[in-house]
Amino acid sequence: MSLESIKYHRGNLQILNQLLLPLETRYIQLNGVEDGWKAINKMQVRGAPAIAIVGCLSLAIELLKDDTADKKIMRQEIEGKLNYLVSARPTAVNIKLAAEDLTSLANDLCADESISPNEFKERFIQSIEGMLAKDIEDNKAIGKFGSLAILKGLESDGLVRILTHCNTGSLATAGYGTALGVIRALHESSRLEHVYCTETRPYNQGARLTAYELVHEKIPATLIVDSMVSALMHSRKITAVVVGADRVAANGDTANKIGTYQIAIVAKYHSVPFYVAAPLTSIDMSLKSGDMIKIEERPDKEMTHIGEQRIAAPGISCWNPSFDVTPASLITGIITEKGVFAPEKLIEMVPT
Amino acid sequence: MSLESIKYHRGNLQILNQLLLPLETRYIQLNGVEDGWKAINKMQVRGAPAIAIVGCLSLAIELLKDDTADKKIMRQEIEGKLNYLVSARPTAVNIKLAAEDLTSLANDLCADESISPNEFKERFIQSIEGMLAKDIEDNKAIGKFGSLAILKGLESDGLVRILTHCNTGSLATAGYGTALGVIRALHESSRLEHVYCTETRPYNQGARLTAYELVHEKIPATLIVDSMVSALMHSRKITAVVVGADRVAANGDTANKIGTYQIAIVAKYHSVPFYVAAPLTSIDMSLKSGDMIKIEERPDKEMTHIGEQRIAAPGISCWNPSFDVTPASLITGIITEKGVFAPEKLIEMVPT
Repeated sequence: MSLESIKYHRGNLQILNQLLLPLETRYIQLNGVEDGWKAINKMQVRGAPAIAIVGCLSLAIELLKDDTADKKIMRQEIEGKLNYLVSARPTAVNIKLAAEDLTSLANDLCADESISPNEFKERFIQSIEGMLAKDIEDNKAIGKFGSLAILKGLESDGLVRILTHCNTGSLATAGYGTALGVIRALHESSRLEHVYCTETRPYNQGARLTAYELVHEKIPATLIVDSMVSALMHSRKITAVVVGADRVAANGDTANKIGTYQIAIVAKYHSVPFYVAAPLTSIDMSLKSGDMIKIEERPDKEMTHIGEQRIAAPGISCWNPSFDVTPASLITGIITEKGVFAPEKLIEMVPT
Repeated sequence: MSLESIKYHRGNLQILNQLLLPLETRYIQLNGVEDGWKAINKMQVRGAPAIAIVGCLSLAIELLKDDTADKKIMRQEIEGKLNYLVSARPTAVNIKLAAEDLTSLANDLCADESISPNEFKERFIQSIEGMLAKDIEDNKAIGKFGSLAILKGLESDGLVRILTHCNTGSLATAGYGTALGVIRALHESSRLEHVYCTETRPYNQGARLTAYELVHEKIPATLIVDSMVSALMHSRKITAVVVGADRVAANGDTANKIGTYQIAIVAKYHSVPFYVAAPLTSIDMSLKSGDMIKIEERPDKEMTHIGEQRIAAPGISCWNPSFDVTPASLITGIITEKGVFAPEKLIEMVPT
């Protein structure tokens, strides 16, 4: 069975501390939004969908303990706490969209005089709990649509070799995964020959997390370093690249883990199709193009150290952008839970 | 002053143990070819020119202690030991070419009856010692030609931003460096605004060695991870890429540290000139094209561990080619000690 990275039942939230993987499997208890903010900011949980779910669940935990009986105060607290949670990782759009939806729900519940404070709280918490189930369902749909798109045109028993970057699996979502969900679906239908995963410097999400999931699920896989993608595509046939997304703009430009843009360029050079797998919540129609996506820069220490061990020469300066933007022109298709869209078709196809 | 990575005076050879850099500066004594082979194979010394020089100097050390008075036996021993040294890193061509030259010298000295065994030994050792001085002289010429090529067409006070990969400096050569020699020459003429160096996974030669040299020489520099090259070229103007070479084929195809091919593709995509800096000894006219270059694969542990600390998920398979081949079509020019050549001109311009 897939890894369980988020363990939730009402009043209790635990997450797998991804900073300790792959060597140690340890869960952390989150007792409220401050714990949620820290877990997101320290990257104990990562991946845009998982960040949104964990952030919102941490609010559900906090609300349950809150004995405020005034709906207006509750509404105000909710809005403030959601804004606080969004600030933990500014590039991930899903939590921002979830926060907007939940703020709007809180406004409606507050305005409706037939709803008691207790009912307000109950309905608000239920709405957050629904996100968990919906995310897994959406990922399974992404897996199905993505695998059909990749297999299209192949012989009915043709096998595929897929390259992926970063981690987009059970550890990045509520379960199943986005890009890794596509790989899982191909494996389940016995059409997957092999997966190659990049180590994904500087944070090694590929080597630590994706490799951990692939070994755990017994999916045939090989780890490469990020700079080997071109040599790999030159030396053996790769059927397609599938990556996730932190944020997709209306024109299809996609912000994702640093290095994605580079893989897209070399995929184009080697004529390998390049897919982005992302739930509709990752698509931000308010952004016309990728130029408008704010790119988070992270501390030098992520590059200069592994744990507490220094690996780079003392005194050297670093540049550490966490994401880059892949232009729509390099993207073959965007795989969502509603189907696969050419990037330029997003504007007509995706409900705003 | 530049780092001294090889300390030699007759009968004494010490090299800086590059595996301990950047945290520890410690020299190792090499007492003969077995020590030389181990230092090359374990990558205590690396970089194609430095490998050739250290390998041959380790033979000079051994010969000096050898009291054989029979020229035929000496000739035979020399040939066997040179073959042994070449086997330590099969992709690096310089040591192979140096071994061929020295074998041919040994044959000539052996055949010439006017030469005594002592004279044979003396002339053979002197010839090896000459390699050290010539390498530095050649690198300075490479630096001069390379900087002129890069500055050509710029305004007379125009500054440049250069990207380099792996380590090609004092630590990879007898001193000064090839690609890093070009950067040094640009810096000496006050035309260098900034250097970006990649960390160069999996062995981190960029983060450990190039960054160490750049900090040591106070050259303005920033470290990036290998997958950030495209984001860097997109976000700020890079004047040129300059890398070294382990082996250049007659048609200009170039084998160099894994990741070079990927940088060349993304440089082309961003219209950034891409130069290879290499002494003529790196050009192997016996190879028609890059397809004929044998690519060394190194152990998984280089990717899965930093020192003794595991960083990748236990159980994952790895692919670890040490080099890749950049096709001539992606190379703007090959910078040698005799000038800068378009790759397709090598065949006419380079003496065979």
